[in-house]
Amino acid sequence: MKKFAVVLAGCGVFDGAEIHEATLSMLAIKRNGADYVLFAPDIPQHHVINHLTGEEMPETRNVLVESARIARGKIKPLHQLNVRDFDALLFPGGFGVAKNLCTWAFEGPECRIDSGIEKVIREMATLKKPIGALCISPVLLAKVLGNVELTIGNDADTAAAIGKTGANHISATHGDVVRDTHRPVFTTPCYMLDADITQIAEGAENIVKAMLKEL
Amino acid sequence: MKKFAVVLAGCGVFDGAEIHEATLSMLAIKRNGADYVLFAPDIPQHHVINHLTGEEMPETRNVLVESARIARGKIKPLHQLNVRDFDALLFPGGFGVAKNLCTWAFEGPECRIDSGIEKVIREMATLKKPIGALCISPVLLAKVLGNVELTIGNDADTAAAIGKTGANHISATHGDVVRDTHRPVFTTPCYMLDADITQIAEGAENIVKAMLKEL
Repeated sequence: MKKFAVVLAGCGVFDGAEIHEATLSMLAIKRNGADYVLFAPDIPQHHVINHLTGEEMPETRNVLVESARIARGKIKPLHQLNVRDFDALLFPGGFGVAKNLCTWAFEGPECRIDSGIEKVIREMATLKKPIGALCISPVLLAKVLGNVELTIGNDADTAAAIGKTGANHISATHGDVVRDTHRPVFTTPCYMLDADITQIAEGAENIVKAMLKEL
Repeated sequence: MKKFAVVLAGCGVFDGAEIHEATLSMLAIKRNGADYVLFAPDIPQHHVINHLTGEEMPETRNVLVESARIARGKIKPLHQLNVRDFDALLFPGGFGVAKNLCTWAFEGPECRIDSGIEKVIREMATLKKPIGALCISPVLLAKVLGNVELTIGNDADTAAAIGKTGANHISATHGDVVRDTHRPVFTTPCYMLDADITQIAEGAENIVKAMLKEL
């Protein structure tokens, strides 16, 4: 049975992992006969956003502890991710990716990537194993891998910023999966487009299927 | 287009709404051509559980604010739920149902139900509109409606406790939907059984389909 490592960035679209993208990625993996283990870095969240008002809350939360909500407790710290144990690596989206796993939300193409995140992306790429990213997560791959074709949908500003990392942004719509010409790197827009939950399910299903086809 | 009111109890299986059940209920509603509005009571959570360790955290969180994470901010306080605007009412599960929406987790069949929750259940029942409940949520219906057939799966202790409310527990397995003989009240076990996420999707799909069939 093929095994995915799925990396979460918290729990909630505005400061963590996007919940629908994470849940529907897990569903797509299982429905297509594969399995997954969830991981998240054991680091503080950049901040906590009240998802009702959009305002910052005077709290501190931990990325691994909050990600465990999506995982029903079954999740491991990222430093335990041994790429040799997995066939594929998948990043659901959410602003937490751009705030906790890297600093893209604040520094764009000059962002820093969490060292643990950079390590697993580089290792998977070296082993030529499929890497997938939904929504805003492709910025991790742009920044770490450089010359790679990917999509975050059709947002012009984000696409231009991605171009500055050396990556090649390709416009895409609901359910589309962009695969790099040379490497097994897969991306799909999900909530980077104005989407409803059925379109997220479609995007998650399509990217997981595309990744499994190369395994 | 048929419209569901979906009521959440926070964000996370151990102290709030079960995230997969909530997400997959929303997906099932949309996939079957209906729509939904999300609601949650604007009340403090009973407590906050660290989902990694299972231990209580020295924090306070609000049920509506945390539910907004699953809702991506699009959620209303429960007191704004006017049953005349909706065709059906659905409760995903999670311990938050038994801790925040009522006190079942602590008092079993002698529990108190949040007054806003009791009100919407009674009003929907009076209008003979379908009510659905996943996982542990059927305890709300047992306690409010009394003589009703329902399922929480096959847990003997919970089934016996439900019997003490005057409700009639019917044993069921993955994906089964129990409909009361006399009233459009629907229940399915989901994570009250040892289930994987594909079985939750199946339960959510089946209960939504069964409810829509009577609309």
